[in-house]
Amino acid sequence: MDYETRLKEAGLILPPPPQPVGFYHPIIIEGNRGYLSGQISRTGEGKILSGKIGTDLTVEEGKQAARIAALNVLSVIQHFVGFEKLGRILRVVGYVQVAENFYDIPEVVNGASHLFLQILEDKGIHARSAVGAASLPLNAAVELEVTVQLRG
Amino acid sequence: MDYETRLKEAGLILPPPPQPVGFYHPIIIEGNRGYLSGQISRTGEGKILSGKIGTDLTVEEGKQAARIAALNVLSVIQHFVGFEKLGRILRVVGYVQVAENFYDIPEVVNGASHLFLQILEDKGIHARSAVGAASLPLNAAVELEVTVQLRG
Amino acid sequence: MDYETRLKEAGLILPPPPQPVGFYHPIIIEGNRGYLSGQISRTGEGKILSGKIGTDLTVEEGKQAARIAALNVLSVIQHFVGFEKLGRILRVVGYVQVAENFYDIPEVVNGASHLFLQILEDKGIHARSAVGAASLPLNAAVELEVTVQLRG
Repeated sequence: MDYETRLKEAGLILPPPPQPVGFYHPIIIEGNRGYLSGQISRTGEGKILSGKIGTDLTVEEGKQAARIAALNVLSVIQHFVGFEKLGRILRVVGYVQVAENFYDIPEVVNGASHLFLQILEDKGIHARSAVGAASLPLNAAVELEVTVQLRG
Repeated sequence: MDYETRLKEAGLILPPPPQPVGFYHPIIIEGNRGYLSGQISRTGEGKILSGKIGTDLTVEEGKQAARIAALNVLSVIQHFVGFEKLGRILRVVGYVQVAENFYDIPEVVNGASHLFLQILEDKGIHARSAVGAASLPLNAAVELEVTVQLRG
Repeated sequence: MDYETRLKEAGLILPPPPQPVGFYHPIIIEGNRGYLSGQISRTGEGKILSGKIGTDLTVEEGKQAARIAALNVLSVIQHFVGFEKLGRILRVVGYVQVAENFYDIPEVVNGASHLFLQILEDKGIHARSAVGAASLPLNAAVELEVTVQLRG
């Protein structure tokens, strides 16, 4: 089953991809590597899932934010590369906007990791770091920085 | 026009490059990739542009700090590789030292992105993540972690 | 002298490696690159060296935490790749869990850099960024994100 079908069966619709601005792009491709710009927890309707996990948002809400950031990652890949050229996800850094003394960062980032596995299956298994950020762009709850391998 | 000329025409002088210490280097080259160590907002005179954006520093001062960190990135490339071997910038992570509730991190990092575009033109277009850090080395306002592609 | 012998002579025992979970792995290998998942300051006995540097922990304790995180990096390499296939360390991002106004992050990360040099000698010299995180997984004092080059 291809990724498009799997998205559809899961009832998921990818958000529209971010547009390139003059000086940085959603993805830079070199050889068989694709380096994606940080994707935040912004829904297809443009709403930012914002706030700090631990006070403004629960862990479950943080997981949902991570899941939405992961959908934006898939949208960048689909739109600028095409799913048929995706080899696999290599590396994910999950930045989580944390309240003081919130440490369950891995559980939040699991929202993204689960989505990659659900849609990409074994091609979605990645190396991962989870980091608590003091703040993130536009007060987003989660930002994902992803590197992928592409097919020749 | 080459990068040296463009720097000169912009009235920019690169700071002296950081020196390698025993256990880490300003840039590690492997194949056609160069991995740079984090470059902070330190001027050619050795002054650190320091403080937290949002309280100690304005957004404009933060952008200037990002610009100076980007000059240090170019200095590392010029000194340890040579501009003639630079293929392009691939990836930039812009860490910004933020005050509580400061979220306009992308605008700060734009100071670096603009400089890369100004000097390197289309070779300076990169994938980018912008992250709010709780603190940075030596109280620097900005740190840039950069990966570049080199010519064979 | 091989790395195993050097570890033994230094009186160091590697912690048991982390186990892969369903959706992310301790290391993802692609071509001659290995991307490691973030390794935290967890001892071989499973104790997390936790707390914020600057209040809960001193710089020296932070360096020790970085050293232990680096031992976990070596454990992942030894277990999932084998030391004989390690070309060199390319890139290290050292995330340090900091108290307010703690800026001596490089000195903390030196604990990891020194260990890599001690055991791997010139193959341990890396590009490095040091970043102050608001929080880290499980309240760990240090997390290391490492990319390595592997031999064919």
